[in-house]
Amino acid sequence: MTSPPVLHEVLAAVLSIRDGRLCVLLWQRALSPDAGRWALPGGRLAADEDVETSVRRQLAEKVDVREVAHVEQLSVFSDPHRTPGARTIATAFLGLVPSDADPELPPDTAWCEIDALPPTAFDHAEIVGSARARLRAKLSYTNLGFALAPAEFTISALREHYVAALGHPVSATNLQRVLTRRHLLEPTGEVAPSGRAGGRPAAVFRFTDRTLRVTDAFAVLRPPGAPGGRDGEPHARPGTGADAVLP
Amino acid sequence: MTSPPVLHEVLAAVLSIRDGRLCVLLWQRALSPDAGRWALPGGRLAADEDVETSVRRQLAEKVDVREVAHVEQLSVFSDPHRTPGARTIATAFLGLVPSDADPELPPDTAWCEIDALPPTAFDHAEIVGSARARLRAKLSYTNLGFALAPAEFTISALREHYVAALGHPVSATNLQRVLTRRHLLEPTGEVAPSGRAGGRPAAVFRFTDRTLRVTDAFAVLRPPGAPGGRDGEPHARPGTGADAVLP
Repeated sequence: MTSPPVLHEVLAAVLSIRDGRLCVLLWQRALSPDAGRWALPGGRLAADEDVETSVRRQLAEKVDVREVAHVEQLSVFSDPHRTPGARTIATAFLGLVPSDADPELPPDTAWCEIDALPPTAFDHAEIVGSARARLRAKLSYTNLGFALAPAEFTISALREHYVAALGHPVSATNLQRVLTRRHLLEPTGEVAPSGRAGGRPAAVFRFTDRTLRVTDAFAVLRPPGAPGGRDGEPHARPGTGADAVLP
Repeated sequence: MTSPPVLHEVLAAVLSIRDGRLCVLLWQRALSPDAGRWALPGGRLAADEDVETSVRRQLAEKVDVREVAHVEQLSVFSDPHRTPGARTIATAFLGLVPSDADPELPPDTAWCEIDALPPTAFDHAEIVGSARARLRAKLSYTNLGFALAPAEFTISALREHYVAALGHPVSATNLQRVLTRRHLLEPTGEVAPSGRAGGRPAAVFRFTDRTLRVTDAFAVLRPPGAPGGRDGEPHARPGTGADAVLP
């Protein structure tokens, strides 16, 4: 059994809704291999850092990491031939930037629409697909919308974020109903213009919590003394299995 | 920035309820470093395999992998000093074996109670803790109990599995109510002796599904045409973010 040394890199698939579309932060490679193709931010793990430290450092070269509302480990990509030359194993992370953040980007870096990616380097398109799948799954059982939405929003605006992230229609009425029932949203007390001539002003909401939690864990599985809720099915806060490493 | 080659290993934290306690599969190291201490199954990634192939191969050296009902990537452990000598990065997996499986184990391998671990090697106790946290979280929003429970069980027996895995009391009545409401359980039509003198026979159940799914994803976030349910909040089947690689 041969076990030669391998290189290790970290990669970040940072997703955000830009102009109503789900995008990923990519930079265009200037050098071979895969020169001209678009790649995820990241790079080699340094000798003195773990993967969380490394992704934070390398992401900071492309985007103000204070704008990144959530980061978690996504998966290891380890196909023996995923990169040319020395074998390189990647630990990939999912990051999310709210749509109202407008971080400065270097000239080689851009938000790229996931449904219309430019030519991508190595297996990075597969990693982007995995990041999108993780986001879609977690939107369905956590409060992760907080990391995509602006700090305050109308239900109509929030619905557009969910539609863009999920890739299918979502009813604003149902979205408001379920997010309210699960105590994920609270009204700010403000109203916003409806956006339609003659339309009524719309109530403005915010997420009640801006750290990841499972929003509908089985109440019967809560530890004794955990925060309660309504109808015997409160929103519990077990460990989520996610590792937020930023900010 | 130095980026020396690193070694890569895979490790499996295989959990199971044995004699009513949550246990992890460990083997006792015969050789230095950490000789005599107990370690997770796994080892170096070979040149021609990805991490999923590697963990399957290495786990097979310790346990019949057909008995493993679920495996998913857990996390990367990459502290620069987690092992002595050459830097080694670990991709850790969570595995689950149903309590009625009784796989043959090599002489150096045993089920060890997580709450009373023997002296462990390297950072393996931390990895076991991470595996237990992931299991507890997923029990609260998925059907993952199928991978811990026997194929058929009374509610009383199932409750004991949840109590052992979660580490706190669970009401059998509530557990049956919520699992039934979410269509996770179905009666087999059989009954089992109650276990108490003069007690009534107890109904026998099984899980309706033996692959991982999120059991209460927001109905409003389902794609159009996805399987329906009751009360406008069916059990959807989005991608779960989990990568089952076994069996």
